Amino acid sequence: MIRFHNGRVERLQDKIVTEYPVTLKINGEEFATMVSSPEYIEDMAIGFLASEGVIARFEDIVDIWFEEQAGFVHIKVKKWNDLYQKFHSKRYITSCCGKSRQGFYFVNDVKTAKVIKDTQVTLTFEDCFRLMSLMQSSAQTFRDTGGVHNAALCDKDGIVLSRLDIGRHNALDKIYGYCLKNNIALTDKIIVFSGRLSSEILLKVAKIGCGIVLTKSAPTELALQLAEELGITTVGFIRNLSLNVYTHAVRIQGM
Amino acid sequence: MIRFHNGRVERLQDKIVTEYPVTLKINGEEFATMVSSPEYIEDMAIGFLASEGVIARFEDIVDIWFEEQAGFVHIKVKKWNDLYQKFHSKRYITSCCGKSRQGFYFVNDVKTAKVIKDTQVTLTFEDCFRLMSLMQSSAQTFRDTGGVHNAALCDKDGIVLSRLDIGRHNALDKIYGYCLKNNIALTDKIIVFSGRLSSEILLKVAKIGCGIVLTKSAPTELALQLAEELGITTVGFIRNLSLNVYTHAVRIQGM
Repeated sequence: MIRFHNGRVERLQDKIVTEYPVTLKINGEEFATMVSSPEYIEDMAIGFLASEGVIARFEDIVDIWFEEQAGFVHIKVKKWNDLYQKFHSKRYITSCCGKSRQGFYFVNDVKTAKVIKDTQVTLTFEDCFRLMSLMQSSAQTFRDTGGVHNAALCDKDGIVLSRLDIGRHNALDKIYGYCLKNNIALTDKIIVFSGRLSSEILLKVAKIGCGIVLTKSAPTELALQLAEELGITTVGFIRNLSLNVYTHAVRIQGM
Repeated sequence: MIRFHNGRVERLQDKIVTEYPVTLKINGEEFATMVSSPEYIEDMAIGFLASEGVIARFEDIVDIWFEEQAGFVHIKVKKWNDLYQKFHSKRYITSCCGKSRQGFYFVNDVKTAKVIKDTQVTLTFEDCFRLMSLMQSSAQTFRDTGGVHNAALCDKDGIVLSRLDIGRHNALDKIYGYCLKNNIALTDKIIVFSGRLSSEILLKVAKIGCGIVLTKSAPTELALQLAEELGITTVGFIRNLSLNVYTHAVRIQGM
């Protein structure tokens, strides 16, 4: 690499972030290809399949085998249905006038995104700042390569699990897969995320089953619409002792 | 929205960025759904179909009709082949030992990403800083909502076309579609991008047919591998009078 800096040209080595294409094959059939950071690939596969509705629990997987060199994860599931493939990324058509589930656009999301009713976990503003700061410092070592997304699963006390990935959804799939495999309860947890809160991220949070999501960045309109409907507390723009609470403020104390 | 700022709670209206799910139907068949910013949807559809190899030029489209309320773009193309659907997002399997096109992971990319041999356009370091700064100021008005990607098609003199989108690839598809529709030459142009230079963005640049891509952010390893192979000059981390040239430095003067 050649760097031009303050008028001078120098040749140097740089740390470059890795992108790893991985294809999931279910019962021998190609299901999806994602580009990710090359860690925790099996967890990511498990989380992705759960969020697509192919498995409901880890026990639905009979066998899982990671062919690392070629970038394939082979999964054998108990029940395989051509409908999974058919509906994977197929548009969900809402009725014109129905008010229900308007924001959903993929068939599988309607099946797997749960409404979160539980309100036992609540946070103070102080908790929100503290968890965001913990999540950010957990990612410190990866900052120099630039451009990775960081997600953490937290409880009120701190970080339970933290994952980095170049793909926005992958970091959450890796968390979800790990929790399914290790039977970690999720309804009492909080998701803390570094990137924009898009509808896809919000749906992922609902699928994982957490009632609160904190982000450093902005939410989108559709994400907030879905959060409203799915009972999820969204807190955004958490920076410099300032934050915005968008939906279901009942889980944030001191309002 | 409720904002907590410097110890005070206030209720206010915020400008929230819009996410718009749009589904492309080709000759009556559902092809793909993308989530985008709700402008220039037809251009995006045209650019996407070209980059997927469904059309080679704008004239391959017999009819295009945007059903805005429902979020559908209906496209009638001259030649429709089930293989497009079959290979869309299907993994491209490289031979174990072959060195060629290693970084490619989708079948359609192999078909549509061109090797750029032209080197008539060259830039000075000064040009790189100036074009990046022009691209950034063109996006000024949208900054307050946060989290949109900005892409510009430039020549040495300045911006030809600039597009914003919440989706990284969509901004480039919107540029590509506009250029195909309006017969704008592309080999003598430069792509300036706000986000990370991933393999997918690099492939998009190759499909559009530009020989130089400038970005404010970091590239990935796979993107640089593809850039090397496809003959594209990549310049990253353009900020504060500093920049890095990663590949095909021949198009950058003063090295």
